[in-house]
Amino acid sequence: MGGNLLIVHGGGPTAVINASLYGALTAAEEAKAKGKVGHIYAAKNGTGGLLKKELLVLEDVPEEKKRLLFQTPGSAIGTSRDELEQKEYEAMADILLEKEIGYVLFNGGNGTMDTCGKLFKTCASRGMDVKVMGIPKTMDNDIAITDHSPGFGSAARFIAQSTKELCADVKGLPIHVVVMEASGRNAGWITAASALAGDGGGLGPDLIYLPERPFDEEQYIEDIKKLLEKKTGIVVVASEGLKDKNGSPVVEPIFQVGRSTYFGDVSAHLANLVIKRLGYKARGEKPGLVGRASMQAVSPVDREEAVLAGRLACEAALNGESGKMVAFRRISTKPYKAEPFLADISEVMLHERTMPDAFINEQGNGVTEAFKEWCRPLIGGELPEMISFN
Amino acid sequence: MGGNLLIVHGGGPTAVINASLYGALTAAEEAKAKGKVGHIYAAKNGTGGLLKKELLVLEDVPEEKKRLLFQTPGSAIGTSRDELEQKEYEAMADILLEKEIGYVLFNGGNGTMDTCGKLFKTCASRGMDVKVMGIPKTMDNDIAITDHSPGFGSAARFIAQSTKELCADVKGLPIHVVVMEASGRNAGWITAASALAGDGGGLGPDLIYLPERPFDEEQYIEDIKKLLEKKTGIVVVASEGLKDKNGSPVVEPIFQVGRSTYFGDVSAHLANLVIKRLGYKARGEKPGLVGRASMQAVSPVDREEAVLAGRLACEAALNGESGKMVAFRRISTKPYKAEPFLADISEVMLHERTMPDAFINEQGNGVTEAFKEWCRPLIGGELPEMISFN
Repeated sequence: MGGNLLIVHGGGPTAVINASLYGALTAAEEAKAKGKVGHIYAAKNGTGGLLKKELLVLEDVPEEKKRLLFQTPGSAIGTSRDELEQKEYEAMADILLEKEIGYVLFNGGNGTMDTCGKLFKTCASRGMDVKVMGIPKTMDNDIAITDHSPGFGSAARFIAQSTKELCADVKGLPIHVVVMEASGRNAGWITAASALAGDGGGLGPDLIYLPERPFDEEQYIEDIKKLLEKKTGIVVVASEGLKDKNGSPVVEPIFQVGRSTYFGDVSAHLANLVIKRLGYKARGEKPGLVGRASMQAVSPVDREEAVLAGRLACEAALNGESGKMVAFRRISTKPYKAEPFLADISEVMLHERTMPDAFINEQGNGVTEAFKEWCRPLIGGELPEMISFN
Repeated sequence: MGGNLLIVHGGGPTAVINASLYGALTAAEEAKAKGKVGHIYAAKNGTGGLLKKELLVLEDVPEEKKRLLFQTPGSAIGTSRDELEQKEYEAMADILLEKEIGYVLFNGGNGTMDTCGKLFKTCASRGMDVKVMGIPKTMDNDIAITDHSPGFGSAARFIAQSTKELCADVKGLPIHVVVMEASGRNAGWITAASALAGDGGGLGPDLIYLPERPFDEEQYIEDIKKLLEKKTGIVVVASEGLKDKNGSPVVEPIFQVGRSTYFGDVSAHLANLVIKRLGYKARGEKPGLVGRASMQAVSPVDREEAVLAGRLACEAALNGESGKMVAFRRISTKPYKAEPFLADISEVMLHERTMPDAFINEQGNGVTEAFKEWCRPLIGGELPEMISFN
């Protein structure tokens, strides 16, 4: 008997964080049935709940109920985004002792992996026998070391499919320019995935602006002017985090609390530039959280890997691993094959992974074929075909 | 032989306008095989293309290609939004004579039904033997006489499902308020449909603001304050067309051309009010055109009725009907049953159908059970179930 097991979610949810919960829960239940685990707990609403000793007991959930996790966005156990100080890690360690917890699984992004690593260190420095493992989760795909993270494939599929639909919708309409805003403040992975809208008889976006490149308003206006000579229904996809050459957001932040900054909408800003400077009809769309919560856009590969990551993190902890995160290594792209491995959490902590140069075109307003090839299998291959007569 | 047949699309597309095209095309091909129709034409990009004699020939499209219309948003033949003068109706009538067109099917919303009625009158006054029929299409559900219009059910399903997902996503997050913007400037049908997010284990939106009721900023802030005493993750759904008690948009129009006005984003405006006046975290989401183009949210009932409307309009024209629009009469809600009938186009023309009082709650910040019962079958019944442990 290695004590009780605790699952903690951190940061904003993805469409498949609950799929990882399913994987972790299933592995934990198997271990419990063999007497290797005592109780299975979840922190209610993340570390915030843990520090208040608010634990949910997740035992004997019938399989048909558990499978609803596959169609439930958000975090079914709640999550939080807290900046923690050392005294709070000590308090958490005390709670682990009190509740006789031998295994902790943290599911989250960079911030959560930082928390995961720090709790691991705190426990180790106190000589506690607690295994602490990380499950990667981010729609933004900005976790280091791993080829990609669960949550990204589905967010990428949403933006690719939605952009494809948007392109079909506005083709030939008297709307001249539509700007679609995509998630990812510092990493352009989701924004870039919109390029896959060109698959399956789709038109694809005309321009893609990534946060990895400084946004130049003059060049943007030039890019649009050139396109307007040829057509209407121009589709632009822009990252919510676009910055100018000085590193300042192209729109002002409107609200800031702790690690979170809320910016004005880039989509509205870029659309208004077209209206004001060129006098053409333009509008902005910002699906925002609708994108990360869309269950209809879930990529089957992404969900499968999310389940696997949850299961493997649990099994690794039970096998005595600690201070590590489940990561994925790509073996092959055609056909797609990736294998999981365990990465040291210290290597992962707070490194933000942005897009490499090889994935961004020379003009800085689109992506390369290499990126599309890399990304395509993660969204589940080519999107459904469309038809057009005009 | 009654001459050639012409299909024309008008106004913004819906997720199922191409399904109506499928229905019309199929009926036209059947008639052509029997020698009752000469050629099958479509106006390229609406009346604008028709006036330039840009006709697409839509004959002998293989069935497997035609079925792609079910997964293609936008208009596969193109559409336009033109304000036409009498001389243009005369020019259109001349083109109908020149191209030996005996049947015209107009697929569109209120503006298009106006065009349809005026071309019908023009042809009649010239003694031309042309049958002109209307196929209803609007995501906004604002066409008069009919119980509902093809296009609405799918847009309603998108907002209901997306709002349900959004509610699950932000439940217990440190985001206090999320404002979702819904389409429909003067008619609140789509905005109202977000209430169905409460089905299937969903939380549903906390507040719904419809364009049928004047928006009172003070009351809104009071509504939010009261909710914030109890919880975070408050979800507000607001129509893009909210107006104050003087009838002025709560946000300024930023761009106007002809019949089209582009407003600033209501979602961003309402979120910013919470930030500025209450000091709480808030954000706005505006899926916008993504909602009307989402093929994954298509309601099966809506698609079926769209096909039917296209087919019946074609058959009616071939049977000598003219100056009419296919409409739906609801026979029963449980179980859902609606039957098509032909409405005089003169009754339909340019009447905008807004929500009746019986569908709006007393406080003006939500809908009634009667509305939900009316709307539920149109989106395909209860949404998929979700689960929550926290």
